[in-house]
Amino acid sequence: MKQKKYDLVTFGEAMVRLSPPHFQRLEQANNLDIQVGGGEFNVAVAASRLGLKCAWVSALPDNPLGRMARNKAAEQGIDISHVIMSPKGRQGLYFLEFGASPRASQVLYDRSNSSISLIQPTDVNWDNVLSYSGAFHVSGITPALSKSAAETTLTALQAAKRNGCVVSYDLNYRAKLWSTAEAQKCQTPLMKYVDILITTEEDTDRVFGLKGKNFEETARRLAESFGFKIVAITLRGDLSVWRNTWTAIAASGGKIYRDRTYEVEIVDRVGAGDSFAAGFLYGYLTSGIKKGLQFGNAAAALKHTIPGDLNWSTLQEVTAMVEGSGLRIVR
Amino acid sequence: MKQKKYDLVTFGEAMVRLSPPHFQRLEQANNLDIQVGGGEFNVAVAASRLGLKCAWVSALPDNPLGRMARNKAAEQGIDISHVIMSPKGRQGLYFLEFGASPRASQVLYDRSNSSISLIQPTDVNWDNVLSYSGAFHVSGITPALSKSAAETTLTALQAAKRNGCVVSYDLNYRAKLWSTAEAQKCQTPLMKYVDILITTEEDTDRVFGLKGKNFEETARRLAESFGFKIVAITLRGDLSVWRNTWTAIAASGGKIYRDRTYEVEIVDRVGAGDSFAAGFLYGYLTSGIKKGLQFGNAAAALKHTIPGDLNWSTLQEVTAMVEGSGLRIVR
Amino acid sequence: MKQKKYDLVTFGEAMVRLSPPHFQRLEQANNLDIQVGGGEFNVAVAASRLGLKCAWVSALPDNPLGRMARNKAAEQGIDISHVIMSPKGRQGLYFLEFGASPRASQVLYDRSNSSISLIQPTDVNWDNVLSYSGAFHVSGITPALSKSAAETTLTALQAAKRNGCVVSYDLNYRAKLWSTAEAQKCQTPLMKYVDILITTEEDTDRVFGLKGKNFEETARRLAESFGFKIVAITLRGDLSVWRNTWTAIAASGGKIYRDRTYEVEIVDRVGAGDSFAAGFLYGYLTSGIKKGLQFGNAAAALKHTIPGDLNWSTLQEVTAMVEGSGLRIVR
Amino acid sequence: MKQKKYDLVTFGEAMVRLSPPHFQRLEQANNLDIQVGGGEFNVAVAASRLGLKCAWVSALPDNPLGRMARNKAAEQGIDISHVIMSPKGRQGLYFLEFGASPRASQVLYDRSNSSISLIQPTDVNWDNVLSYSGAFHVSGITPALSKSAAETTLTALQAAKRNGCVVSYDLNYRAKLWSTAEAQKCQTPLMKYVDILITTEEDTDRVFGLKGKNFEETARRLAESFGFKIVAITLRGDLSVWRNTWTAIAASGGKIYRDRTYEVEIVDRVGAGDSFAAGFLYGYLTSGIKKGLQFGNAAAALKHTIPGDLNWSTLQEVTAMVEGSGLRIVR
Amino acid sequence: MKQKKYDLVTFGEAMVRLSPPHFQRLEQANNLDIQVGGGEFNVAVAASRLGLKCAWVSALPDNPLGRMARNKAAEQGIDISHVIMSPKGRQGLYFLEFGASPRASQVLYDRSNSSISLIQPTDVNWDNVLSYSGAFHVSGITPALSKSAAETTLTALQAAKRNGCVVSYDLNYRAKLWSTAEAQKCQTPLMKYVDILITTEEDTDRVFGLKGKNFEETARRLAESFGFKIVAITLRGDLSVWRNTWTAIAASGGKIYRDRTYEVEIVDRVGAGDSFAAGFLYGYLTSGIKKGLQFGNAAAALKHTIPGDLNWSTLQEVTAMVEGSGLRIVR
Amino acid sequence: MKQKKYDLVTFGEAMVRLSPPHFQRLEQANNLDIQVGGGEFNVAVAASRLGLKCAWVSALPDNPLGRMARNKAAEQGIDISHVIMSPKGRQGLYFLEFGASPRASQVLYDRSNSSISLIQPTDVNWDNVLSYSGAFHVSGITPALSKSAAETTLTALQAAKRNGCVVSYDLNYRAKLWSTAEAQKCQTPLMKYVDILITTEEDTDRVFGLKGKNFEETARRLAESFGFKIVAITLRGDLSVWRNTWTAIAASGGKIYRDRTYEVEIVDRVGAGDSFAAGFLYGYLTSGIKKGLQFGNAAAALKHTIPGDLNWSTLQEVTAMVEGSGLRIVR
Repeated sequence: MKQKKYDLVTFGEAMVRLSPPHFQRLEQANNLDIQVGGGEFNVAVAASRLGLKCAWVSALPDNPLGRMARNKAAEQGIDISHVIMSPKGRQGLYFLEFGASPRASQVLYDRSNSSISLIQPTDVNWDNVLSYSGAFHVSGITPALSKSAAETTLTALQAAKRNGCVVSYDLNYRAKLWSTAEAQKCQTPLMKYVDILITTEEDTDRVFGLKGKNFEETARRLAESFGFKIVAITLRGDLSVWRNTWTAIAASGGKIYRDRTYEVEIVDRVGAGDSFAAGFLYGYLTSGIKKGLQFGNAAAALKHTIPGDLNWSTLQEVTAMVEGSGLRIVR
Repeated sequence: MKQKKYDLVTFGEAMVRLSPPHFQRLEQANNLDIQVGGGEFNVAVAASRLGLKCAWVSALPDNPLGRMARNKAAEQGIDISHVIMSPKGRQGLYFLEFGASPRASQVLYDRSNSSISLIQPTDVNWDNVLSYSGAFHVSGITPALSKSAAETTLTALQAAKRNGCVVSYDLNYRAKLWSTAEAQKCQTPLMKYVDILITTEEDTDRVFGLKGKNFEETARRLAESFGFKIVAITLRGDLSVWRNTWTAIAASGGKIYRDRTYEVEIVDRVGAGDSFAAGFLYGYLTSGIKKGLQFGNAAAALKHTIPGDLNWSTLQEVTAMVEGSGLRIVR
Repeated sequence: MKQKKYDLVTFGEAMVRLSPPHFQRLEQANNLDIQVGGGEFNVAVAASRLGLKCAWVSALPDNPLGRMARNKAAEQGIDISHVIMSPKGRQGLYFLEFGASPRASQVLYDRSNSSISLIQPTDVNWDNVLSYSGAFHVSGITPALSKSAAETTLTALQAAKRNGCVVSYDLNYRAKLWSTAEAQKCQTPLMKYVDILITTEEDTDRVFGLKGKNFEETARRLAESFGFKIVAITLRGDLSVWRNTWTAIAASGGKIYRDRTYEVEIVDRVGAGDSFAAGFLYGYLTSGIKKGLQFGNAAAALKHTIPGDLNWSTLQEVTAMVEGSGLRIVR
Repeated sequence: MKQKKYDLVTFGEAMVRLSPPHFQRLEQANNLDIQVGGGEFNVAVAASRLGLKCAWVSALPDNPLGRMARNKAAEQGIDISHVIMSPKGRQGLYFLEFGASPRASQVLYDRSNSSISLIQPTDVNWDNVLSYSGAFHVSGITPALSKSAAETTLTALQAAKRNGCVVSYDLNYRAKLWSTAEAQKCQTPLMKYVDILITTEEDTDRVFGLKGKNFEETARRLAESFGFKIVAITLRGDLSVWRNTWTAIAASGGKIYRDRTYEVEIVDRVGAGDSFAAGFLYGYLTSGIKKGLQFGNAAAALKHTIPGDLNWSTLQEVTAMVEGSGLRIVR
Repeated sequence: MKQKKYDLVTFGEAMVRLSPPHFQRLEQANNLDIQVGGGEFNVAVAASRLGLKCAWVSALPDNPLGRMARNKAAEQGIDISHVIMSPKGRQGLYFLEFGASPRASQVLYDRSNSSISLIQPTDVNWDNVLSYSGAFHVSGITPALSKSAAETTLTALQAAKRNGCVVSYDLNYRAKLWSTAEAQKCQTPLMKYVDILITTEEDTDRVFGLKGKNFEETARRLAESFGFKIVAITLRGDLSVWRNTWTAIAASGGKIYRDRTYEVEIVDRVGAGDSFAAGFLYGYLTSGIKKGLQFGNAAAALKHTIPGDLNWSTLQEVTAMVEGSGLRIVR
Repeated sequence: MKQKKYDLVTFGEAMVRLSPPHFQRLEQANNLDIQVGGGEFNVAVAASRLGLKCAWVSALPDNPLGRMARNKAAEQGIDISHVIMSPKGRQGLYFLEFGASPRASQVLYDRSNSSISLIQPTDVNWDNVLSYSGAFHVSGITPALSKSAAETTLTALQAAKRNGCVVSYDLNYRAKLWSTAEAQKCQTPLMKYVDILITTEEDTDRVFGLKGKNFEETARRLAESFGFKIVAITLRGDLSVWRNTWTAIAASGGKIYRDRTYEVEIVDRVGAGDSFAAGFLYGYLTSGIKKGLQFGNAAAALKHTIPGDLNWSTLQEVTAMVEGSGLRIVR
């Protein structure tokens, strides 16, 4: 991966996330912890920590909150030269309440009129960004932000294809942003540019009305219907709010790839799917699907244990997890 | 419930609660989180959040701590016009240590000589408070506070009955406040004013020496012995300090009502019984015993997940819990 | 003031305020303290704490942040039955950075599309709210929020006048909300409903282009130009960011009223002007202009020492300040 | 000072102190910082840090709060073998609000029925404690706690005298504990056992009705009236709540001793007088009155800059202050 | 145990421990909680809290961090008169990350060149310390610190033996301090002074290459090979990072002692082994092996629930645990 | 400055800084705030925020603390590709206590054996780093770290000169790192590579024994003695620990440049001198000495108000300060 300008380029929003500490309800909080996160931002961070050279494309307001979001990308070694510090729009926010059984965790979005929702396809020189880059990743959240964001997503996907990038797409359906009908209508034309689809059974059912007898069949039918090279389906088991299981399977060329199932104690589950995407891309780009699945799952499992949207693991730690490190204190 | 002055009136102490953060022992703490709580105060808060128009009767010292306690009631929409800001007595305090298996959580009371322990029956115009009110709730903690508090409880119960209120009584035996003999002697004469008794098998055994072969029989015998319209028995299972099960049954007219059992991850279990009482009263007053049981259990289950004595749930959330909401993050 | 439904009604936005602790820049913050504040909200709180029976009219989103804002009003004893919990709009936010010389404190507003900016004149039954009420207070921030908010302000002022309320108006020019030309055009027609104008020399110069040789002349000319019964001008001296002086004068019937100047150590200066308004209204409504000025200044001085927008002083403390309490620790 | 069992023995209450962070009012606080303090406890701590071998006599409840108070004494190297861990009484508390000009700092005591207020003269074997000890120190707070505490104070003073201790007494009048008449009546008979009186002009006026034309005369008249060997008068100037001046003078044998005046920036002024007493005793016992005054003032000045009641300075630092260390960062 | 100077003397390092709050990775932390801990220090604290009269021998730098470590020992009632406040070396530090499944907790040591690593055998008058003392405890960490620390350990063990102390040794292998070969070479000659060996199966395998078919056989073979009077083997089961099981067995005179297995919810597992050692020594010295095992296990189980290295339990609580206290809140 | 690879390259250590919150003494702290700082690191950060393209050369351990330091540089937009993540050495730490008059702030260094102290001249390809770069900055701290660090500093200075960089040197004498004799001996040979010397009168007196009658003469004599193009002398006035004055003068070509004096309220004065250097270099490189002085002073003044070593100001804010912005809240 030496000669490439970037190993991976991602495109999407970064929100400032505000969460009450210690399981407080938002309504009762006296202070809020600050994190920065967003699907494609999280993917770039996790991939960068695994060693990929990453750029992240976005638009942020030119104010302290926008700078904070940009700084956090730079802090993780991500190229931010294509992040637009915009005079238009506001910083997207989200408020996150951590739950405990039987109270689920909850997100309150406050992201309308964000700078990136006002982005236009021509605001970014996509060929410049994506030429000589290895892969491009975006999720279904970005086109959901606004009509112009959807157009910009299409423009970016076309440029990625044109420039020979591996194109990865996380379906990531968000019911608070658009209806399933809107999501289907907007995203169906995008799928032809996609090589790797990352999704859940629930999301493909909701967005594409596609549901197999089991996840293997779902994956195969997705691959066939849209011509994806790879379909990865993540599988979460909700033992309780504080304890989940995590694994994923991948389908490619009619073959199903499987990996171990992790039991995770949940410090912060936001961004686990993004860590899967990053780990998968890292593993896939360096060694193929099997390693992709292993690194995706290990990265996702570790993410559950780390506060914030971001995966502060190292390549060494994720590799050790793949190889089976234990639960005993390391000293 | 439109014409009533109050749907529910409760009477009891509010303490300022001081608890070390993050499972620290009290002896090692460097700072303490502040909450306000107390059995009948908690009931009024939870009922008010479910939509009942509530008044809370109490006495507090006229100093910053007393004002803090009063403010917290007002914050939750409770009528505080019958709270006496008293020149006598101090603010009751309690210190709460959060445990982890095998160390149980612990309470250190520092509530003697509180303003409410000095209350006299004539300090409150009970007929004024309770006329045109739907229900009155008090627990076995209030009469345990002092002789004059016990007399005031009797006065209040009589006025409640006289004014046609549904009378609810949570037995709530507190060994640090009085002996079982004292509790029995004082409370037995109060029971004839009570319509709804809320209790545990352990407490009725300790206070009234009444123990059936199973909780159904206990409930039936309680109803028969004292003439209660409804007996609700709450049932907690201690899987560990951080994980419990919760349910309750109700007996009325010879019939036993049951509901699902919740498995709860415990952020703060104090006040769960009070949330049950509030949910039960809300459900019962609006739709009868079955809904009372469902709302009581759902409210109690949710309470375990919320820091502090108070139940910061909404009617919408409790209703969703009754209807079976899941554990997956809501976004 | 016994027979009145409310002694004081105020109308305006409450924002959730987020501020980095310990003089951090917003860009570097890891967590934010939460407060709730807003001009007319702050006035209602401070007046309520001084003993006036207050109602606050506003619109808030029906979500945890909106409830938080509403709760904080209730916590202070304010009647919130006229606060609209709206399905439209978002919760207004503002971010506050505390400075130190030579870095001034800074506010970053994020309040566009708030629920109150979407309010319509008919959303509130103003005659119902204001009949039998003693005074009505609004500031120049409310009409600046949106066209419909300006119309609603006019409707409210007319109803206040119609119902015989004393009408108080704090000019409070906010350059980030509108231009001086817009402010003048919108507010000039409102002034005829106003009895008491509270302002600074700087604001009347910016909004009305009216500037006397000194503040006494400015006050007199304002009173003459617009027919105000009373003009109060607040006077702040910036010794440093952490140390200011505060006083105010009032002009009425050609007479100038003066009071002592306070030197204040600044914990949080936001809301000092609102405390002045509340203290002035309390003193004026109970004893006339002189006491109004004294209580306004004492309340404003004390506000500088209290974190948050709100004035957690008591009537007893403000009275003691007027009477000259000292700086020595009280124990 | 080698042969002595203790260089200094003090006798008095230790309270658990609870204070809202960052200048919050108590009424608005969400958490409280914990410290332990009390006049004679503070003196023992500061003297121990200066190198005196100290014992502290007190009574505390045998619960986590009482143990916390005892631990903090041990942490500072104080002998706690004469602290009674009592089954009677509660832990004394006090709540401290930090002010800012013009709002003075405030203390809310919650210390009634503390274990030490229930102490009896015979609970301590005073001759055992005080034989072979160099000095004994108590303040006017201890006899104010209860009748039996006053009797115990008298018993202790007699034993101190009998065993040849230098006896130091800080007048420390607390209006919330007793009236000036009570203070005078109780303490006048105690004064004959006292060698060193530490006081302020205000306190001697209030307690003994003794006020000279200036502090030198006050000191001389005190020495004459009661036969004190040394009278030390501390002098605080309130420039503002955050900035004071501090110095003290001493009178002995008709001679007045003076020292430099410190200008202090106030982090926490509680315990400054106690630090003076400790520094004075250290300096006096090791080198005489002049050094006593210097070390007392330096220790008191430093105390203002340290959070909590206790003086976490070292002998090296206090010595450097006496010798004139500067304000520039040390690195 | 009356006549003894000390019931227990321990020798080893105390580190200042810095840990990110709330499961943060060290790399992402904004602040660190401070604790003080170290194997033999922890043993002395836990034993002191159980009522043994303990002294702790160590060397610390004469700076604020060294004083902090010393203070914490004094706070727990430990005799610190044999702690050397040294002009040489630095304060040992360690950074602790708390994990969650599947991420194990991790320790980053920063302890090289600590004051104790520079200790010389003659820096302590071992005969003075150990004469008339009941027991001496050291772990395999102390000789691993440096060559001179190993020599000092040998000197201490010889003096302990010479003075008739019961000698306890916790094998505590730390791979980051030395290799297994180094550990074996250094420690084998030390074993002949040891009466009680406390270890795990894993450590004896790594250090001595000794591994039985089961832990009973391992214990017996250890006892035989080295002539230990007692071998205690602690047994931890890793259900998850947040949930473990704990028990231990002891072998003595060919007999195996067993105790119940605790299931623990983990707040902080560091120091559990040290609590076992302390509880075992307490029980053994007062009542023999069986009680030693019971108190060791109960103390170790409780330690998992308490933040920091230290066991803030009381003798009463540990005794109650041995006798079977429950999980229900105590109030 | 377009064509250059870097506008500014700096070389030096970054330490992890640990400081007790709220003016606590280190010895009493329960938690520590984390910052990252170091002379040349701070200069790179402040210069980067002003718009210069900066690289920072250093060596850090390849562990979480080292990564934290590296991340913070990246977060501020600094090129970190020349930072060596080393297997050798530890992360340098320093502990900072914030003072209040009369207690000065204090630094406790724990930086020996840091990775950068083990650096060798050939570890960095200096010609690669410095070719096509505009300026090189180092301070007297770097050569003080170790002999090899001093050699590497010389190598770097030679390369800077060879590559035509403007060379800036901040004398920054640290008595805890070396003696004045060592500092003079090591640094005198370095001075011939220096264009801009930044210093204080005190430091040039201590290091070079050079002291003029006034700072103008000192500056002129320095320029003459060593052949500097520019000598900048910073001038701090200690009004108190919380209030200082700041200005600087520059001497060049026999001419003295002066600027306004700032009065600053001190949140955190560490790094003010580094901000001066950065502001001076920014202003000088873009517009000459006068603007250099203005930007240096404005940046330094602002730094005092910001927590941490780093200057989180923007170019816009520093420019506004130069142009005379006020102290009134900005909203």
